[in-house]
Amino acid sequence: MIVRNLAEIRSSERRIATDNWESVRLLLKSDNMGFSFHITTIYAGTVNKMWYQNHLESVFCLSGRGKLKDLETDETYTIEPGVIYALDKHDRHVLTASEDLTLACVFNPPLNGKEVHNDDGAYTLDAEAITS
Amino acid sequence: MIVRNLAEIRSSERRIATDNWESVRLLLKSDNMGFSFHITTIYAGTVNKMWYQNHLESVFCLSGRGKLKDLETDETYTIEPGVIYALDKHDRHVLTASEDLTLACVFNPPLNGKEVHNDDGAYTLDAEAITS
Repeated sequence: MIVRNLAEIRSSERRIATDNWESVRLLLKSDNMGFSFHITTIYAGTVNKMWYQNHLESVFCLSGRGKLKDLETDETYTIEPGVIYALDKHDRHVLTASEDLTLACVFNPPLNGKEVHNDDGAYTLDAEAITS
Repeated sequence: MIVRNLAEIRSSERRIATDNWESVRLLLKSDNMGFSFHITTIYAGTVNKMWYQNHLESVFCLSGRGKLKDLETDETYTIEPGVIYALDKHDRHVLTASEDLTLACVFNPPLNGKEVHNDDGAYTLDAEAITS
């Protein structure tokens, strides 16, 4: 059994941050669960274009408010607490945060650890691992 | 892309309830994500002995307070917001809720839909599916 605490993990190398977001990666590939689980904060005022060509991802909103645009269909959705979206078709999308968005994210396959988006807005499959 | 709302799904057949808990199953096997994702409430005052022989599960606490006992090691852990546990070894365990516990749960393989615990505290792999 693995037991971890968000506050402790936030001060470890499992916290990955960019100008637009931080992601606290509570479970990773090295944990052998077959998925990874992250608590991610998208900073207010940021616009994030993404395209997870190599992963399926689900995103459940815990707090904050934003807008999601599906670039495959041009539909837009309000993101607020209780909303989940799942990128079951590797859908290209844009997530805009009007307030800090706190999100519970699940990736399949699991992330190695140090992934940040490439120019396509994707995570590659060969990112450096975090095993601690 | 799949977009759903907890409040709406709570009034659908994706809400499964027993005397001890309710589980709102936002993503299931039929959603083809390779995992299922549920928001589960463990009712205050209940003691829940479980042994997921057929699944790996991670549980992230969103609200409430309780106690987790690992029956493989006899260790106990406080469950409160920000704590995650992962049953990476199909660990037998007991979860006791002193307050209503709201939990974000991920299962691999994904649940079909209508699973409730059998006498072992497990979910079988042949439960009835929810596809709506």
